[in-house]
Amino acid sequence: MNISGSTRVFLILGDPVAQVRAPEVFNHLFARHGADAVLVPAQVAPADLAAFARQALKARNIDGLWLAIPHKTAMVELLDRCDRLGRSAGAVNAARRNGDGTLEGALFDGVGFTKALAHFGVPVTGRTALVVGVGGGGVAIATSLAAAGAARIALFDTARGRTAAIAERLAAEFGVDVVSLPQPAPAGFDLVVNATPLGLRADDPLPFDPAQLDRDAVVVDILMKNQPTPLLRACHARGIAAHPGFEMLVQQVPEYLRFFGFDSIAQAVQADASGLRAIFQRQGDTT
Amino acid sequence: MNISGSTRVFLILGDPVAQVRAPEVFNHLFARHGADAVLVPAQVAPADLAAFARQALKARNIDGLWLAIPHKTAMVELLDRCDRLGRSAGAVNAARRNGDGTLEGALFDGVGFTKALAHFGVPVTGRTALVVGVGGGGVAIATSLAAAGAARIALFDTARGRTAAIAERLAAEFGVDVVSLPQPAPAGFDLVVNATPLGLRADDPLPFDPAQLDRDAVVVDILMKNQPTPLLRACHARGIAAHPGFEMLVQQVPEYLRFFGFDSIAQAVQADASGLRAIFQRQGDTT
Repeated sequence: MNISGSTRVFLILGDPVAQVRAPEVFNHLFARHGADAVLVPAQVAPADLAAFARQALKARNIDGLWLAIPHKTAMVELLDRCDRLGRSAGAVNAARRNGDGTLEGALFDGVGFTKALAHFGVPVTGRTALVVGVGGGGVAIATSLAAAGAARIALFDTARGRTAAIAERLAAEFGVDVVSLPQPAPAGFDLVVNATPLGLRADDPLPFDPAQLDRDAVVVDILMKNQPTPLLRACHARGIAAHPGFEMLVQQVPEYLRFFGFDSIAQAVQADASGLRAIFQRQGDTT
Repeated sequence: MNISGSTRVFLILGDPVAQVRAPEVFNHLFARHGADAVLVPAQVAPADLAAFARQALKARNIDGLWLAIPHKTAMVELLDRCDRLGRSAGAVNAARRNGDGTLEGALFDGVGFTKALAHFGVPVTGRTALVVGVGGGGVAIATSLAAAGAARIALFDTARGRTAAIAERLAAEFGVDVVSLPQPAPAGFDLVVNATPLGLRADDPLPFDPAQLDRDAVVVDILMKNQPTPLLRACHARGIAAHPGFEMLVQQVPEYLRFFGFDSIAQAVQADASGLRAIFQRQGDTT
């Protein structure tokens, strides 16, 4: 990595920002593939997001932004254009300045998830899915499952008000059957996703009861820490197929690269996902 | 250089910015001395400077700005505090956010110049100096010569209006004898400085007539390109001591580092100026 005056600059905005792993992963890829680009962190308070993002993208060598928590949702309102997934989910992972000066955003969390399912050999089209927890990750996942042709999607969240609005939005946008559940009851679903933070703390309950899972259900726990998570361990003990969220991160990387115009690096990275996994594992497994 | 979410970020603002050498020099020093910090370029238009600088310095991990052309002067108006040289010259090279939230600036161009003179063994105190060209570099140099105790300073610029105001300001601030000259006549001065861009183009005239120099005068040409410059060659041909501006850049580096709190790196760099010169020479000799 040799930063000069002609280096293209990208910023990852978060608050806090110290925990983000994207700079290590992407700068490694930029250096390895000879791209004169750098991704640097910026700790921006929520109240400053709009003004900061606008000013940053006026700089002619600052080409785009990565959005980390808590900015993924607020960024949507600043965009001129947004991909369908981002618009539907109401959140974006990235924003770029187009050649015509417009600001365009896109969401990759859900694409990363469905690409990870494909990697695991788990079909989505025509299947039923339960998403437990509809914070940013859960909404992105539900949206991508709807876009990928799931037959029926059920949502549960302890904040009951959230799921109804999201279900209505996804049903209208994708014509898919989306319901809100009063309890996180996993029986009868082909795919069950934990998108809650349950499992972070030692005394957390499981997000749902694994004993109620169908025998051939597939579980994904997108929690990045404490691997294997209590949910994964409980599923494995019952012989239920269960995957960590790690692959979801890995599969997002080419999407960011393509969005920001690094097409050849995106192709190389997608073709060598095992190399990419090694980078993540070396750097730590959260982003 | 391993940029992570916890890396402290500095920006160098210029327009254009591709030509700045500071990222290569300072990132090399940060990496070599184990500082978790990075300096990245930002091409900011003059009209955007105020808003960009304010927003950038609100980010809690963006600790400071390097100011390149054309922002050195405009930045002064955005500061809460400024060192004496910057205030007197009306320009700063750097601005930092202090712990109390105030924005503080400082000018190093002139200090770099007087430190370079010390390195060459050229005394300033009680001596007379002519500064030809009072753009940013010339004003900074004249200001530092005044602060360093020059007995008499003469200024010449083809834009006659500029020199009178600067002479008045320096005389008031430092109690030194400062005059504006109608011609760049170097006779009778101990030190004569070219701070014009003359010498960049092949058909440029010399900034002053070397034949008029006193035999024991010392000349400094701060032009960074086309080394040795036509002026340096003309002086050398007459046996006049004449130095390029390169050392002025080298001697500024510890000042930036100290200003931004990298005291131990500043000390190490000052103690090993020859190593620093090698870095500049490897990276190109302009900043």
